Amino acid sequence: MNQPDQSQVISSAPGATTTAAAKGPTVILTGDRPTGPLHLGHYVGSLRNRVTYQDDYKQFIMLADSQALTDNMEDVNKVHRNVVEVALDYLAVGIDPAKSTILIQSQIPELAELTFYYLNLVTVARLERNPTVKAEIVLRGFERDIPAGFLTYPASQAADISAFKASIVPVGEDQIPMIEQTNEIVRRFNRLANREILVECKALVPEIGRLPGTDGKAKMSKSLGNTINLGATAADITAAVKKVYTDPLHLRVEDPGHLEGNVAFIYLDAFDPEKDKLEEMKAHYVRGGLGDSIVKKRLEVVLQEMLAPIRARREELAQDKGYIMQMLKEGTFRAREVAARTADEVKAALGLSYF
Amino acid sequence: MNQPDQSQVISSAPGATTTAAAKGPTVILTGDRPTGPLHLGHYVGSLRNRVTYQDDYKQFIMLADSQALTDNMEDVNKVHRNVVEVALDYLAVGIDPAKSTILIQSQIPELAELTFYYLNLVTVARLERNPTVKAEIVLRGFERDIPAGFLTYPASQAADISAFKASIVPVGEDQIPMIEQTNEIVRRFNRLANREILVECKALVPEIGRLPGTDGKAKMSKSLGNTINLGATAADITAAVKKVYTDPLHLRVEDPGHLEGNVAFIYLDAFDPEKDKLEEMKAHYVRGGLGDSIVKKRLEVVLQEMLAPIRARREELAQDKGYIMQMLKEGTFRAREVAARTADEVKAALGLSYF
Repeated sequence: MNQPDQSQVISSAPGATTTAAAKGPTVILTGDRPTGPLHLGHYVGSLRNRVTYQDDYKQFIMLADSQALTDNMEDVNKVHRNVVEVALDYLAVGIDPAKSTILIQSQIPELAELTFYYLNLVTVARLERNPTVKAEIVLRGFERDIPAGFLTYPASQAADISAFKASIVPVGEDQIPMIEQTNEIVRRFNRLANREILVECKALVPEIGRLPGTDGKAKMSKSLGNTINLGATAADITAAVKKVYTDPLHLRVEDPGHLEGNVAFIYLDAFDPEKDKLEEMKAHYVRGGLGDSIVKKRLEVVLQEMLAPIRARREELAQDKGYIMQMLKEGTFRAREVAARTADEVKAALGLSYF
Repeated sequence: MNQPDQSQVISSAPGATTTAAAKGPTVILTGDRPTGPLHLGHYVGSLRNRVTYQDDYKQFIMLADSQALTDNMEDVNKVHRNVVEVALDYLAVGIDPAKSTILIQSQIPELAELTFYYLNLVTVARLERNPTVKAEIVLRGFERDIPAGFLTYPASQAADISAFKASIVPVGEDQIPMIEQTNEIVRRFNRLANREILVECKALVPEIGRLPGTDGKAKMSKSLGNTINLGATAADITAAVKKVYTDPLHLRVEDPGHLEGNVAFIYLDAFDPEKDKLEEMKAHYVRGGLGDSIVKKRLEVVLQEMLAPIRARREELAQDKGYIMQMLKEGTFRAREVAARTADEVKAALGLSYF
């Protein structure tokens, strides 16, 4: 159980035609827990891909506010506020609400309904064995006081994925057990219904993995203060780049430098559009004779150029909160129609249709 | 934790005015899992009281089909079919849909929504300590393979009770821990919301406890085949009374008889309207000289008289399934309006209102 089943994973997005087992376009579900503004780590790991996916797939992007509450019950306003912030991030990076359906999880009661029924299709022992849940329980320090909503959130994820009949779910490597659990529930339900009502899904693990924090720590995270947010000001970016972790052994310009764990180069690999020049710069750095200040200067140019239009668009959109709310309302409405159809099918198969 | 907290229990229904802490009429929630036709045990333990309650309280009666599924996932048609059967039983005994609101649980998605949020307000450890849940896990032989929906069903019960802001919940003694758990969730939520949005409830334990089976076993139960259903035919009743367990030591008519555990007399105590004559009969039986056949003859008269009009009304109603479905639809609709208001309040307090 601890070894992810690689048959449920795809490493790059297949063509829309090859995975469309069911009729209709291939559906992809992605989303974020709205607990803070999005940053470069999100951009590399998911947002940038979504801008591409929306042309190839029917894409649903979920603002998972109900799920965020499972461990933010004591700060409900944070979640509420960040729904709009994250929506601004989405539009600012080029997610197009005409191509992607952006929805707010809590506003689709059918997701809670499906969760409710799926809880009958998974045992407590199985949830307790889920490696992702186990790891997150340790991470959050719950110990024995695990909120029931936290232990059972794989059923909620299965509801989110299956409600939209998504067959592709972009996730990090650590989330693959959640996809397996979803597919177990899907299969168990279909067997019970004696029909292929729900759709199995595959994890799509992005090629570029997690972006390290500016301090060199493995993960960019708001709580570690090592992020560069998508809405960062020019001054924020300058300050962050100055502190970026490089090679601690590279003391003098003429010394050979190291690329491994060197955050400046990891970011340049991720964002510098001029790949050839970057390769030359890397070779120079490894040889010796290239100072960190030159590398950081380049990084600053790259990040400022990349983030300036995103920030500008974000600021412009933030002026018109009415538009953002209307966009969220329409996306949620469209998504709810899909989820309600699935919930109706599920309930009918369970004998819960009367009128 | 194993000792029910008696402060959360009332032994007889208080006047409507004394418990109405909140504004508006006192609300009572009752219901049944629709897994089979109702029998004399239900009549004594709950149905008969509901006919009285509906004049004193705002009464919601829930057909708990979703809850019944937690351990009937392999026989979903049974639950579907019995929703109508139980509704027929309700109307046949005198529950009046103009006074009581009869609702189907699964048709009110807000109950699943509230369950979803309440799961964040209770820990796994707390659910595992719930004595009612523990006992039912043993009863159903789940051992380690407990469906998650079964472990978490106290959250679902809290949702059902609180959705209608019920302050009185008639339950058996064994269900008191469920009421305590509901009140814990209610208090935790109100503290979080910093307002008295949800209402605490009290268990109302009926004065006449559980009716034994016709075979003398402690509980009347379909699976034991020791019931007399409300829709029983005259011949069913005759056959059942013949087999009713009396006093195994009462071998000859002239022997003194015993009343303890004597099902014929327990049923007469519950149903014979002529109390004085019954007391005379008991005295005679204890003294000796009164045969079981006389006692059973009286029991048959009493049961036939009581059940004949119920059966006739049931048969009449069963002719018009359209009426029953319409009644259920209207009741469910009215109930949903109330539950949706509560769900809106709960979600608003959790910061989950946007549009």
